[in-house]
Amino acid sequence: MKVARARGSRGRKNAGRPTIAVVGLGLVGGSLARALTRAGYPVVGVDHSSVLRRAQDSGAVAAAFARPEDAAAVADVVVLAAPPRANLALLRRLARAAPSSRRPVVTDVGSVKTTICAAAARLGRPAFIGGHPVAGNEGSGFAASSPDLFRGRAWVLTPTSGSPRELARVRAMVRAVGARPVVMSAAEHDRTLAFLSHAPQVVAWALFAAAARDGVARRHLEMAGPGFRDMTRLARSPRGLWREILSLNRAEVARALRAILRRVRAAV
Amino acid sequence: MKVARARGSRGRKNAGRPTIAVVGLGLVGGSLARALTRAGYPVVGVDHSSVLRRAQDSGAVAAAFARPEDAAAVADVVVLAAPPRANLALLRRLARAAPSSRRPVVTDVGSVKTTICAAAARLGRPAFIGGHPVAGNEGSGFAASSPDLFRGRAWVLTPTSGSPRELARVRAMVRAVGARPVVMSAAEHDRTLAFLSHAPQVVAWALFAAAARDGVARRHLEMAGPGFRDMTRLARSPRGLWREILSLNRAEVARALRAILRRVRAAV
Repeated sequence: MKVARARGSRGRKNAGRPTIAVVGLGLVGGSLARALTRAGYPVVGVDHSSVLRRAQDSGAVAAAFARPEDAAAVADVVVLAAPPRANLALLRRLARAAPSSRRPVVTDVGSVKTTICAAAARLGRPAFIGGHPVAGNEGSGFAASSPDLFRGRAWVLTPTSGSPRELARVRAMVRAVGARPVVMSAAEHDRTLAFLSHAPQVVAWALFAAAARDGVARRHLEMAGPGFRDMTRLARSPRGLWREILSLNRAEVARALRAILRRVRAAV
Repeated sequence: MKVARARGSRGRKNAGRPTIAVVGLGLVGGSLARALTRAGYPVVGVDHSSVLRRAQDSGAVAAAFARPEDAAAVADVVVLAAPPRANLALLRRLARAAPSSRRPVVTDVGSVKTTICAAAARLGRPAFIGGHPVAGNEGSGFAASSPDLFRGRAWVLTPTSGSPRELARVRAMVRAVGARPVVMSAAEHDRTLAFLSHAPQVVAWALFAAAARDGVARRHLEMAGPGFRDMTRLARSPRGLWREILSLNRAEVARALRAILRRVRAAV
């Protein structure tokens, strides 16, 4: 086990609180680490060394690990907070790792739930509870993270193989960062999010690109009002991450876009 | 001339500033009256008596008129701030009125410019400079008005028949409320706004309606994140007003929607 520069001891302050390992300290993982640390949880982080250094310097994590297996061995909950396909690879890697005495429950923060929940069911271990905080913004990376990102937001949980006690542990973590746990099936989540998030993301790109490419409108983009700015703000979100999300939820996104296009055509 | 309850005299304070008649004291007209009064302009208002009472009580207008001709007779600039089709009727009404000694220049705040500019050119009088503040929100009515609505926003001017001096008078009024005058042709305005405002309005309706009608997503609308909320905020704008805008700019809105739909289909 390689502990990189663990700092200080929160000792009694954290007595009774489970240790959380956050794997991937980007916008969501970084925000979660900050929020949990502020709430008194012992938090350990996994990421590239440059990100870990920033996370430790800012006090977001108490200890840093290069390998997810090592973080899992000291954790009660492991949160996979990398992009969706990387989370799938991390889950397989944790399934292959030697069982530790802690046997942490694993959850994730990905925007698509059926793929990773099906993979977790196939693998059989570790215990897995799918998760998705319906929060975020057009930023990315640890620099964009904030301990208030989840405050007042829904955080969907799609239990796959965790026990009621493990689900309760994840729920408590979600509440500790100010979010509202909402339990549903992975399929219900993916259909709903296609309408509330994934298809709107495609539409935001389309709105911005159509205006930016029109021979006349492109000369006057700077005079857009707050409505257009709000509707295209998401178009600045990281493309690569969104390509992954859309391809993992292709059928539901197509369903939602068909419904939206039908209504656009009916309106004119 | 029927002056309803003119109040106080701004006398020397307003010396040299042209008198502005605002016809229609809704979200935009009410905000303009408030902003101009704050900037030291003498402002007179035209609307139904209940609205005029509220506008006078709040100090937004110094004098109130039931008939637009009467307001025009005491004004240097008349701003038509009713819905687009009502503005067209008001313009025809002012063209028929007996010429006053002030011969005010007329402008408007409508979201579509080709129709009213063509009507003004056909009528020949009064002098007309099309206008459109690219500002607003999903609210409506005088109660939703604010003197800060135009601050930092573009305000398009599409001169039709005004003299350079009359254009300068309207420009000065636009600057006085904190907006940035942008001069272009009515056709350029309508094509640009189709992309930046009119088509996005249709899309906001479609996004919201598709989610609200889906058998699964409709059960979870309350968990929408800030992205969806921002993208569908406009869907709460007054439908009747938007139906008018869309029908007056039908060809350009259709062009913009075709471009947007093309890009949505290319994205999936």
